[in-house]
Amino acid sequence: MSEYDLVIIGAGPAGLTAGLYAARARMNVLLIEKAVPGGQVLITDWIENYPGFPEGISGFDLAEKIKEQALGLGLEIETAEVKGLDLSGKTKEVILKEKRIKTKSLIIASGASPKRLGVGEDKFMGKGVSFCATCDGPFFKEKVLVAVGGGDTAIQESLFLTRFAKKVYIVHRRDELRAAKILQERAFANDKIEFIWDSVVTGMDGFFSVEKVTVKNVKTGDESKVDANGCFIWIGILPNTEFIKGDVNTDEGGFILVDTKMQTNVPGVFAIGDVRDTPLRQIATAVGDAAIAAVSAEHYVENL
Amino acid sequence: MSEYDLVIIGAGPAGLTAGLYAARARMNVLLIEKAVPGGQVLITDWIENYPGFPEGISGFDLAEKIKEQALGLGLEIETAEVKGLDLSGKTKEVILKEKRIKTKSLIIASGASPKRLGVGEDKFMGKGVSFCATCDGPFFKEKVLVAVGGGDTAIQESLFLTRFAKKVYIVHRRDELRAAKILQERAFANDKIEFIWDSVVTGMDGFFSVEKVTVKNVKTGDESKVDANGCFIWIGILPNTEFIKGDVNTDEGGFILVDTKMQTNVPGVFAIGDVRDTPLRQIATAVGDAAIAAVSAEHYVENL
Repeated sequence: MSEYDLVIIGAGPAGLTAGLYAARARMNVLLIEKAVPGGQVLITDWIENYPGFPEGISGFDLAEKIKEQALGLGLEIETAEVKGLDLSGKTKEVILKEKRIKTKSLIIASGASPKRLGVGEDKFMGKGVSFCATCDGPFFKEKVLVAVGGGDTAIQESLFLTRFAKKVYIVHRRDELRAAKILQERAFANDKIEFIWDSVVTGMDGFFSVEKVTVKNVKTGDESKVDANGCFIWIGILPNTEFIKGDVNTDEGGFILVDTKMQTNVPGVFAIGDVRDTPLRQIATAVGDAAIAAVSAEHYVENL
Repeated sequence: MSEYDLVIIGAGPAGLTAGLYAARARMNVLLIEKAVPGGQVLITDWIENYPGFPEGISGFDLAEKIKEQALGLGLEIETAEVKGLDLSGKTKEVILKEKRIKTKSLIIASGASPKRLGVGEDKFMGKGVSFCATCDGPFFKEKVLVAVGGGDTAIQESLFLTRFAKKVYIVHRRDELRAAKILQERAFANDKIEFIWDSVVTGMDGFFSVEKVTVKNVKTGDESKVDANGCFIWIGILPNTEFIKGDVNTDEGGFILVDTKMQTNVPGVFAIGDVRDTPLRQIATAVGDAAIAAVSAEHYVENL
């Protein structure tokens, strides 16, 4: 293939769904993924809110199903890391380590990564550690939780957690919050929320899942263990856009800006799912974005 | 319940998904549906492009699964027809025949209906008759199709059908098209497309599925039968908004205008799925809209 109709970067639910639509529409489409297809869903233990699975489904199984569906409809997947883009010409180029791939249109679906604490929480992913209250909050009915962070997201989501948990400790490294005043007021007024100020989480223990969260006071240096069934971490989220060097417009956080057709400021270049400036990061929203972008790309290529 | 947190109007994939999210988030939520839950999906024979079902799934089965999931998460569904809305106060009111339901927030997910020809095509729904090339085009590989209409959608979608079908007859009631010039030029240049001018479809025949489409010349009155395996109808689409009398802003076609959080011009009132001014009408996009609106409504109610 000297030039593809469409290249998609990233094989999470967004990229796979865009690939599924494009392959089914008989576009010459290639999906490039640097790791294993599935994206963040692969490390999601259990999903209750993706429509169509009344019993729930494991993240691994859902990722497998979407991959199988895309491959069955003819999607080609190549394992490679994207090093850069060249969007200067009418033909766009995706730069890999050993070659350049030419394409008429491009969908960026490379996802985003919640910032980690780096205190060993990775082994508790799906076993008490989460980055998403909407996704996982309902699994913690009448449980005790630790939440980390002091921004809007941390406070908004902690308030949400109090719908389920019996207690939410918010651990924050300073003695005041960055969050909006109204959120602060609601958090301070909420009986279920208790703040642990001037502190950071330095470790977690548990046999099968989180049982204790170690908290260190940064002023005194004292460490203590909090009995908790889970730990929600909201210290930021980073778009996976290392390969994009000013090629498309982003917001101040680096998330790609798009219009209602998912098109960036560069005609024929689209961005979907977690990597875009989206109001919500869910599998349901990723697949919605993807369908729109695939059809938009098809129209774009047809009208070249 | 004297006042709900959220009322949702319409139980297609959009409404059910919003309900699923809201119920899981422990909102006091009621979904109102005038007919059977499922919406247009119920009359969709087979779905290949909703992510998660590699073998495909019938519209009926998918609707059942989403309904079961929503009910399992605690969604309450009431069968009733909405007669009107009163959005003048901070508390919104949904007007039914015999009562008014009070709610803090509202999601309109009442869908849209493709205009019918009214020539007996309803019995061939999913058996050759379709309103969506993206959905059903790939089922007609190497088949002969009739398409009805002369606007942008009709021509764009007919061009898409030529990726699969061996022949597409476009039946149009006049002798020129309303579609954009570039689409016209592409259609005229396409070997697989043949126009049948000054004509309308007056009937269809077939044993199990469409076999012949009857076409009448409106100038001569002559009728003839075209051998065809399918008929795609693109003579317009109407939003299901009889109960909305200027309560929210719409586009010229009556589709509800929303922002990126799916909120209409009235705070706390959201619109999702086919009834909104959306670039694409698919199950994938409906569930994406729904997740965003449910979380937006939750934030709205929390901050009242």
